[in-house]
Amino acid sequence: MQEYAIGLDYGTNSCRSVLMEINSSDELFSEIYNYPSGSQGVLISDADPNIARQSPADYLNGMEHIIKSVINQAKESIADFSPAQIIGLTCATTGSTVIPVDAQLTALGLKDSSNLDAQTWLWKDHSSYKEAELITQKAKELRPQYLERCGGTYSSEWFWSKILHLKNVAPETFEKAYSFIELCDYLPAILAGKEKPEEIKASICAAGHKAMYADQWGGLPDEEFLAAVDPALVKVRQKLYKKAHASDQLAGRVGAEWAQRTGLAEGTAIAVGAFDAHMGAVGSGIKDGSLVKIVGTSTCDLMISPKDQSIAGVCGVAKDSVLPGYMGIEAGQSAVGDLFLWLVNNFVTSEYGSNRDEIFANITKRAAALNVGQSGLLSLDWNNGNRTVLIDSQLSGLLIGQTLHTKAHEIYRSLIEATGFGALKIIERLEDSGVEVKEVVCCGGLAQKNELMMQIYANIFNRPVRIAGTEQTCAVGAAIFAASAAGKDLNELQKSMLKPCRKEYLPQKDDVRIYSKLYGLYSQVHDGFGVEGNPCDFYSLMKELIDIQKASKNA
Amino acid sequence: MQEYAIGLDYGTNSCRSVLMEINSSDELFSEIYNYPSGSQGVLISDADPNIARQSPADYLNGMEHIIKSVINQAKESIADFSPAQIIGLTCATTGSTVIPVDAQLTALGLKDSSNLDAQTWLWKDHSSYKEAELITQKAKELRPQYLERCGGTYSSEWFWSKILHLKNVAPETFEKAYSFIELCDYLPAILAGKEKPEEIKASICAAGHKAMYADQWGGLPDEEFLAAVDPALVKVRQKLYKKAHASDQLAGRVGAEWAQRTGLAEGTAIAVGAFDAHMGAVGSGIKDGSLVKIVGTSTCDLMISPKDQSIAGVCGVAKDSVLPGYMGIEAGQSAVGDLFLWLVNNFVTSEYGSNRDEIFANITKRAAALNVGQSGLLSLDWNNGNRTVLIDSQLSGLLIGQTLHTKAHEIYRSLIEATGFGALKIIERLEDSGVEVKEVVCCGGLAQKNELMMQIYANIFNRPVRIAGTEQTCAVGAAIFAASAAGKDLNELQKSMLKPCRKEYLPQKDDVRIYSKLYGLYSQVHDGFGVEGNPCDFYSLMKELIDIQKASKNA
Repeated sequence: MQEYAIGLDYGTNSCRSVLMEINSSDELFSEIYNYPSGSQGVLISDADPNIARQSPADYLNGMEHIIKSVINQAKESIADFSPAQIIGLTCATTGSTVIPVDAQLTALGLKDSSNLDAQTWLWKDHSSYKEAELITQKAKELRPQYLERCGGTYSSEWFWSKILHLKNVAPETFEKAYSFIELCDYLPAILAGKEKPEEIKASICAAGHKAMYADQWGGLPDEEFLAAVDPALVKVRQKLYKKAHASDQLAGRVGAEWAQRTGLAEGTAIAVGAFDAHMGAVGSGIKDGSLVKIVGTSTCDLMISPKDQSIAGVCGVAKDSVLPGYMGIEAGQSAVGDLFLWLVNNFVTSEYGSNRDEIFANITKRAAALNVGQSGLLSLDWNNGNRTVLIDSQLSGLLIGQTLHTKAHEIYRSLIEATGFGALKIIERLEDSGVEVKEVVCCGGLAQKNELMMQIYANIFNRPVRIAGTEQTCAVGAAIFAASAAGKDLNELQKSMLKPCRKEYLPQKDDVRIYSKLYGLYSQVHDGFGVEGNPCDFYSLMKELIDIQKASKNA
Repeated sequence: MQEYAIGLDYGTNSCRSVLMEINSSDELFSEIYNYPSGSQGVLISDADPNIARQSPADYLNGMEHIIKSVINQAKESIADFSPAQIIGLTCATTGSTVIPVDAQLTALGLKDSSNLDAQTWLWKDHSSYKEAELITQKAKELRPQYLERCGGTYSSEWFWSKILHLKNVAPETFEKAYSFIELCDYLPAILAGKEKPEEIKASICAAGHKAMYADQWGGLPDEEFLAAVDPALVKVRQKLYKKAHASDQLAGRVGAEWAQRTGLAEGTAIAVGAFDAHMGAVGSGIKDGSLVKIVGTSTCDLMISPKDQSIAGVCGVAKDSVLPGYMGIEAGQSAVGDLFLWLVNNFVTSEYGSNRDEIFANITKRAAALNVGQSGLLSLDWNNGNRTVLIDSQLSGLLIGQTLHTKAHEIYRSLIEATGFGALKIIERLEDSGVEVKEVVCCGGLAQKNELMMQIYANIFNRPVRIAGTEQTCAVGAAIFAASAAGKDLNELQKSMLKPCRKEYLPQKDDVRIYSKLYGLYSQVHDGFGVEGNPCDFYSLMKELIDIQKASKNA
């Protein structure tokens, strides 16, 4: 009998299901559900642009729809298909996406949909920045080891910051919350029909990267530390999990209610959930020596390493968070696609086209026609600060080399190059820490679409850049973990359920040589403006750009 | 009997006449003539974008038309008007604008209109850059004193470079040229009916600023030096003037031919010509302590000083070149209006308007609505290199502080500020050399139109910025010199024939304070990227911009 697994991918604006055969890379059926609430699924506030919430009802309505749909599609297309052939499922979700719940594991937002603070606090909610600063400061004083694992700064996007901010701005809602649960833990628990927050099987990915959980200090941050931040957090900790688990583990089995709602067989295995980037890395074929870059508005970079170590300037390191038995290493760039969108939305005239798609097509074509170095431009990719390796939000953009002849497509190319140089900084930091990067695998919309960008990356990295074989890396990763938790061998699943890379960009010798020069100049500016106590002599920089430009025009 | 004078202003695209009463600031009649040849009067070449020539026929046809026209207007409007009441005239022209002539003072271009090299070599012709480098290099080796007076670098725009380039690229045309004459010397000589190049009265303004002429080394550069550059220049020198003259001197008197062609009385005084910027400075009311800025696509900055001295990093210092008895000091910024045009033409979307005028109006309005420092941006004004005080064409633009929220009007304001900061560098260099700048008088199109820019300048300079009383500063300056050469007292003429400043912008205390901080940051970047051997620590720069931005938003 053929067996199947379902992977769920909960993104920022929608959720999606993919139904796959075990031991085949075919994505047989899929369904998408766009969250109906708010602005493209995000509840925002005029009072504070930092606020980004979601309605938990959207998650549950979506889950019912997308699971039921792929089961129905399978029934229609496959003779004698039975839902009992689906051996497992699980979810990849955004995170840290935090849900206040009551003692019965009911999301507060389901009971009080008009209270923004009772809803889910979406990963990109930045309203808790002051609480993040406090946590960082207290950890610096009391528990520096906590910060070593998360790159030196605790973020406003993360678990404890959000809970503490809720307590500070809406104490009555905080009091109503019995506990707080990550979305990737909530969905498996709901599917399994669990009725107490204490019963959830927590994801090590969420715990390790966002809640300062690590085996080396016995799990979650200790009560003494939390008390120093705010005594209210001690009570929160007491109701949370003690241990967190990798996604090859069973989170539970589908209960009666959700079997009925979705058509799944009762008792179907549910794997522990994890974050989309991490499951996406598995769906992209991550292995020792492969850096997986999820390239979108920003990037999330993932590596695995058999060695347990901290890496300075990297967002986070957590055991088993990507693949069991390996350290999961997470880095990222805070603006990539957003940088190009910013340029195109604000600074590109109708000379390039009458709508955004046309403009992107033309500006990319004209940028591709340039020789390396021909524009004479050099940019930094810091318009949204620097997440890795400087971890400094108080940085900004920089453009050098413009003349009265500089055109938009030249700046566009320069911004692409800047994101490539920024990515190479991450690669170098990993390698300096002993984590060798032999190849780069890119996934995400930009990686699939922007061939110019990927070729430039290969030339800047001087490494092959491969494009993941599927566009649904997160859902495929989730399906693989679902089958694994149902008892299949994870290694075998990775071999059989992953498509080979769709495309490969190889470094081109001449461009590699010029990019190596430009990267030297980028590094000067990067370190000059980004590293403390590092005076630089920039007198020759503009002249060197002009020399590179002249050589390029003669080439 | 009322007396009159005529000022002629020969610009890049047209020439213009103004007829004024002596001892009155009224510009009674004027006429403009657009050069019909080439592209807006400029002969260009597809083969070399550096080439910019003009047809000498345009000058002469224009001169006949614009003089005749104001005389006719006067005849029609003033009872009993007689051309004999016009006591003098002269011209302000672009320069170094060099005309190859034959032994009879006939411009070669009149005889061979199809030969581009035989035409006038317009000021902005940059084809002679290699010759300029050679002259600079030889002067460094042999006559460093020559370079002290012209800011350290001899330009491709200047007299000797152009002549040498003609010899190098078109030797047969060079051989046909008996001599070479600046446009400001040519027109008075033609009006006077002179028939030999040796008879011209050379302008000290052209000679001093463009031909390395100075009393201290006995006039033009010596033969030994010229021979070291190229022996052909020795022969050129032998046919040139020995002495140059200020514009209160008589260049000649109107001869029979041009009396007939224009309606002027034969014998009317013709003053020695000079460059437009210099006569424009007089027409703007230049005096000791006033810096006159002619603000257009680039700026030309003029000061006078009773003290004879070189000033490092300033384009040129020449005795009597602006007002007799004073050193004329010339500086400039290589891109001002051009910088704004570059932005608006290439990077401003239809969100700001559907045509250039509308865009300029809206972008200026939105930029004016910003608080100082609110954009968080800092720019350099080097998109076209730096003319003063760094004298370095191998510099380029720089923009710091952009985020994903940065808009075009913020960059526009930042560019205005950058030109203001660059202007303050010039002011500080003048003051460091003992030339006090008490006020700034601006003239030119941008000064008249752009109130935001002028107010920003007043705040950056922390000095009053006044706008010249007339838009025809060059023609008015020429009319004043014409009357002076005809025997009137120059001081009296300046008092009576100049309109008071049209508008005054006073520094605003709060903005002055913030601009002083921003100027500190500009100076760091200016010196860090522009001054050799000056390592700088830029780590705090982006953070300081963010601090200024935050303070500004709270203000």
